[in-house]
Amino acid sequence: MLTCFGESHGRCVGVVVDGCLPGLSLSASDVQAEVDKRRPVSEVSTSRREEDKVEILSGVFNGYTTGAPICMLAWNREVESDTYEEFRWKPRPGHADFPASARYRGFNDYRGGGRFSGRITVAFVMAGAVAKKLLQGIGVEVLAHTVEVAGIGLRKEPTLDDIKVNVYRNTMRCADPDAAKAMETAVLEARSGGDSVGGVVECVALNLPVGVGEPIFDSLDADLAKALFDIPAVKGVEFGAGFGASRLRGSENNDQYALKGGQLVTLTNNAGGVLGGFSDGMPIVVRVGFKPTPSISKRQQTVNLQKRAEATLEVQGRHDVCVVPRAVPVVESMVAAVLVDHLLGLGLVKVGK
Amino acid sequence: MLTCFGESHGRCVGVVVDGCLPGLSLSASDVQAEVDKRRPVSEVSTSRREEDKVEILSGVFNGYTTGAPICMLAWNREVESDTYEEFRWKPRPGHADFPASARYRGFNDYRGGGRFSGRITVAFVMAGAVAKKLLQGIGVEVLAHTVEVAGIGLRKEPTLDDIKVNVYRNTMRCADPDAAKAMETAVLEARSGGDSVGGVVECVALNLPVGVGEPIFDSLDADLAKALFDIPAVKGVEFGAGFGASRLRGSENNDQYALKGGQLVTLTNNAGGVLGGFSDGMPIVVRVGFKPTPSISKRQQTVNLQKRAEATLEVQGRHDVCVVPRAVPVVESMVAAVLVDHLLGLGLVKVGK
Amino acid sequence: MLTCFGESHGRCVGVVVDGCLPGLSLSASDVQAEVDKRRPVSEVSTSRREEDKVEILSGVFNGYTTGAPICMLAWNREVESDTYEEFRWKPRPGHADFPASARYRGFNDYRGGGRFSGRITVAFVMAGAVAKKLLQGIGVEVLAHTVEVAGIGLRKEPTLDDIKVNVYRNTMRCADPDAAKAMETAVLEARSGGDSVGGVVECVALNLPVGVGEPIFDSLDADLAKALFDIPAVKGVEFGAGFGASRLRGSENNDQYALKGGQLVTLTNNAGGVLGGFSDGMPIVVRVGFKPTPSISKRQQTVNLQKRAEATLEVQGRHDVCVVPRAVPVVESMVAAVLVDHLLGLGLVKVGK
Amino acid sequence: MLTCFGESHGRCVGVVVDGCLPGLSLSASDVQAEVDKRRPVSEVSTSRREEDKVEILSGVFNGYTTGAPICMLAWNREVESDTYEEFRWKPRPGHADFPASARYRGFNDYRGGGRFSGRITVAFVMAGAVAKKLLQGIGVEVLAHTVEVAGIGLRKEPTLDDIKVNVYRNTMRCADPDAAKAMETAVLEARSGGDSVGGVVECVALNLPVGVGEPIFDSLDADLAKALFDIPAVKGVEFGAGFGASRLRGSENNDQYALKGGQLVTLTNNAGGVLGGFSDGMPIVVRVGFKPTPSISKRQQTVNLQKRAEATLEVQGRHDVCVVPRAVPVVESMVAAVLVDHLLGLGLVKVGK
Repeated sequence: MLTCFGESHGRCVGVVVDGCLPGLSLSASDVQAEVDKRRPVSEVSTSRREEDKVEILSGVFNGYTTGAPICMLAWNREVESDTYEEFRWKPRPGHADFPASARYRGFNDYRGGGRFSGRITVAFVMAGAVAKKLLQGIGVEVLAHTVEVAGIGLRKEPTLDDIKVNVYRNTMRCADPDAAKAMETAVLEARSGGDSVGGVVECVALNLPVGVGEPIFDSLDADLAKALFDIPAVKGVEFGAGFGASRLRGSENNDQYALKGGQLVTLTNNAGGVLGGFSDGMPIVVRVGFKPTPSISKRQQTVNLQKRAEATLEVQGRHDVCVVPRAVPVVESMVAAVLVDHLLGLGLVKVGK
Repeated sequence: MLTCFGESHGRCVGVVVDGCLPGLSLSASDVQAEVDKRRPVSEVSTSRREEDKVEILSGVFNGYTTGAPICMLAWNREVESDTYEEFRWKPRPGHADFPASARYRGFNDYRGGGRFSGRITVAFVMAGAVAKKLLQGIGVEVLAHTVEVAGIGLRKEPTLDDIKVNVYRNTMRCADPDAAKAMETAVLEARSGGDSVGGVVECVALNLPVGVGEPIFDSLDADLAKALFDIPAVKGVEFGAGFGASRLRGSENNDQYALKGGQLVTLTNNAGGVLGGFSDGMPIVVRVGFKPTPSISKRQQTVNLQKRAEATLEVQGRHDVCVVPRAVPVVESMVAAVLVDHLLGLGLVKVGK
Repeated sequence: MLTCFGESHGRCVGVVVDGCLPGLSLSASDVQAEVDKRRPVSEVSTSRREEDKVEILSGVFNGYTTGAPICMLAWNREVESDTYEEFRWKPRPGHADFPASARYRGFNDYRGGGRFSGRITVAFVMAGAVAKKLLQGIGVEVLAHTVEVAGIGLRKEPTLDDIKVNVYRNTMRCADPDAAKAMETAVLEARSGGDSVGGVVECVALNLPVGVGEPIFDSLDADLAKALFDIPAVKGVEFGAGFGASRLRGSENNDQYALKGGQLVTLTNNAGGVLGGFSDGMPIVVRVGFKPTPSISKRQQTVNLQKRAEATLEVQGRHDVCVVPRAVPVVESMVAAVLVDHLLGLGLVKVGK
Repeated sequence: MLTCFGESHGRCVGVVVDGCLPGLSLSASDVQAEVDKRRPVSEVSTSRREEDKVEILSGVFNGYTTGAPICMLAWNREVESDTYEEFRWKPRPGHADFPASARYRGFNDYRGGGRFSGRITVAFVMAGAVAKKLLQGIGVEVLAHTVEVAGIGLRKEPTLDDIKVNVYRNTMRCADPDAAKAMETAVLEARSGGDSVGGVVECVALNLPVGVGEPIFDSLDADLAKALFDIPAVKGVEFGAGFGASRLRGSENNDQYALKGGQLVTLTNNAGGVLGGFSDGMPIVVRVGFKPTPSISKRQQTVNLQKRAEATLEVQGRHDVCVVPRAVPVVESMVAAVLVDHLLGLGLVKVGK
């Protein structure tokens, strides 16, 4: 179970992970390695340079998890809040400013989006680091990668090796280096125009046992979708053939069964590894659509809430032109967190001998 | 809170709705009216003829809800289980048979899909009937309609009136009568070929207040997505521009603000009414992708689990060639149930004077 | 997880048990045997004669649980609601009438206490029957018995054999037959005076593994206490030495450790088997204080809510003079339900080979 | 919702409070004032001198709560862990050492009880400080006080004024100054004998509306009991006449109704303000039994788990001879936290104008 806290321009962002098994080897540097994966990437990201140094405050003793809640946080360092004073009364289009202000009667921390900033995803990745270590111990792998940016997709279906080798070798976190270059060009072009772009992240989970998921109301796909929609800027989630399945015939879409080395397998994986709310033994494949970063320097129409008058604004600040590359470890983390929760519930996670 | 029970070929399907406010006028016929919307539609649906007669067992007294849990059920009548004996050991592709059998060690009720049959959605609609009555009382409307079947979409964007007037006038539950005809033709053609088709349902929710949703882990879109993925055969969920937003620029996708009659509105609704996990005051727009019905009479490859040998099967039985039209009231119900839960949590639902 | 529904004078009382493992042999007669333990006992109980015939509506197939939710209910038969019309506006002292009416704005089913009747505990016992069968399979025993009625306690500390043999041989559900006689006399005397009495039930759980409980917020004692206070008429819960421990010195109260057959044991069990929110390997011992039945035929002061005037009432109807004997299987059921939930969460329940 | 983290000898103890309304004026010193109430009291408490300086890490902006999770913590300063090395393998009687070690396979932080130390209650009081501020805003008061120490009770029933004025004027947190003196004498005497004593705390909550509580499974008394049993060393919880009610007749125990100034009141309050799981409009009265501090310097029998041999130990360290006085603000905090949760769920908490 995860509880996040912190704001973009507050003192810190952090998370409490409850329910981790005791005896997992865990250090701040294990978590740091994951958090570093979402750090800004050269010219395509924000110029805000947060160290995001992970501290573990509880739940770890002598290098191992104790079974008690693990509180982890990163202190905020480079905070420039002055630029946000303008947005207090002029909600930025595409940001949570307006509904958050309505809901919290204006008491929300509006600086940098406050709690609704993408910065909260640092906490997701910290939690994901713990989840991934638990999954590793039972051979479950979770791998996310960018499959589309600015409408530019992969040129060929990547192999698992492509994903494992290439993703962190380019700024786009993409398994296809050629596509990555084209994506990067599109991102830089959008930036030069004061605009932003979106994209799609795919996540694959391997080696999950058959039958993970709690029907009806905590089915595996439902819980994954819920966790993924908790990531800021996500507008769509689909499994396997996804919305494309809606255009197939049953005879095309059904994943027929065969035996392979004595194991039941499916000949295709249009289901994306989820059937009837359970894992079906094939790789989980889920795709997550991200909208373009709402912060753009182009002039936009808004309303001054204080004056109840129409107004315009330009969002300068320091922003990612495209959140997709930095969202890759975030997607991975959320998927890992959901899988480990389900596996823990079934008594299928083991630590140590 | 919903708790469902029952199986396709067991004694009944039912639901317990806990947390309904007292004083809501509610009768079995109110619920029946909603349940009737998902009954089989002429030639495009299953030939199983279930009466689906709603009985209310608790929580209603003298015509009004009491505040106590409302248990509702429909007894199963027309059960032909013999045809399912074959599938006990030969899992049907695209059905939950295989993972359910693995998870429940063969003890699951395999007749007609048991608990994993689409029949469980009768219970969803019963619950939705209560939710919709509560929402009506505060002016929130939830309207679902078919927007794609077998790859055939709407010819024009429907108005709200189109949706309200047309949907239950054609077999496809489609706001565009011309598209409905083309869809129906495609469905009948698939049927004659022993095949099946999928499609997409859109749901619109109107008049929701701004700021509904519980960040971060119970955001409105996350909870809606979770509930929608609980519906059998759903493979994708997207809000507003959805996956399409991933291809837009920020300047195109951002919903800019303006004043209209003194109210803050957005000039577009690419967000689908959800921003930062909150409702933003615009209509909620969510699209749900359904795969083609897995039950097809074409011969398919499977595995005989008892003999551990490859095998083939043909699924005869009585099935919907396309679940989409009957899924329309189900989607509506799940959206209504989630909205009413969030609104109740905020103290925003009122009943009576 | 339990969800109860039904009212005293409605159509039925029932429960949905979610999360039961598949493969548990279960029949309606298994459940009936437990439900029969709480049936009225000769002259000390109500004259309402409910058959309380258990029906299983879902979750069981071919004699075994399937892993799906188990819905069980008993239809109400012998309902005499006319006598309750008077109490609609004149709340009975000691009953939920007044707060329920306030909370539900008068829409609550007031007949026979409606949802707040002790009759709801039939549903608890049905659920407990399933829990106890699961516990049996792993050797955990749960045994409740009356230890005090009308201030009359046991004459000597009962052995486990006393509990197992004697409890259902007397009307008081008491392990000490002599005490039982004295208690029964006190109950009959109270009845002849138009009055009622209370008492204390003790529950012992044996063979629980060490370390069951989820600190801090789902500790074992906390969850047991919560479930026990859900039983109508309970006013106190204590573990081991309980409130008596508050008067002991540390040197008297601490359960010191020793080895017995290579096993760590404690020399005393003042903790009642719970330490730091965990089971400690010794028997769980919890005592539950029940108030006297609020329904008495003596004249009492109340208020006519409609007329806003003081009034009097006499509660005739058919009532237990003392709920304690019939509460014994209810306490047992709630303890079993909590234990099995914790054990399931730890993956410590197994069914079949 | 509360999530606690931290250990007795780790870096800190802290809490995340989720669900607080926005707009509540809140500063670290508000919280500090409550935390200071549980600081060691002269000679009757531990000599460990923790500053317990409260820091607020999130959820407060410009002096007001924002609606986002509030993370608060106190860094541990004066940690002497060496004395605990002995207890790693020799569990202290009456402490969680043994079951915690079994449950967490020896990975638990055993220093000073780790997570199972009473020190975690600093976090409860921080959370309680927020809850109490919210309750204040709607006129609900929560007042705890010591009613028994070492078997010494109050000499007379205290008035509300006695409680408000006297409790923090003596070391025992007792409304009756004479009783307090006798209690203190008993505590000092136990200390001089290397022993410890227990006692009982009573908590009163005033001005709660009628009908607060969620039947059946989240009834008000059940939730209060659960939260109170989460406090280390609690062995019993009772409401109103409590276990004493089990010895009364119905005609004595029933709280009969009358009108007072047009309001319905009860003539007695044996129910302790809870009827049918709801508040009934009278003061909530709950008593909580604490066992004597398990840490005593007298020699005790234990087992060396490493050597699997019987052993003895003397617990020196720095401990409270009696936890009861310091438990008073903890009980108050837990009661306040539960009440505010229920009231928030009903939409009955308001902040600001």
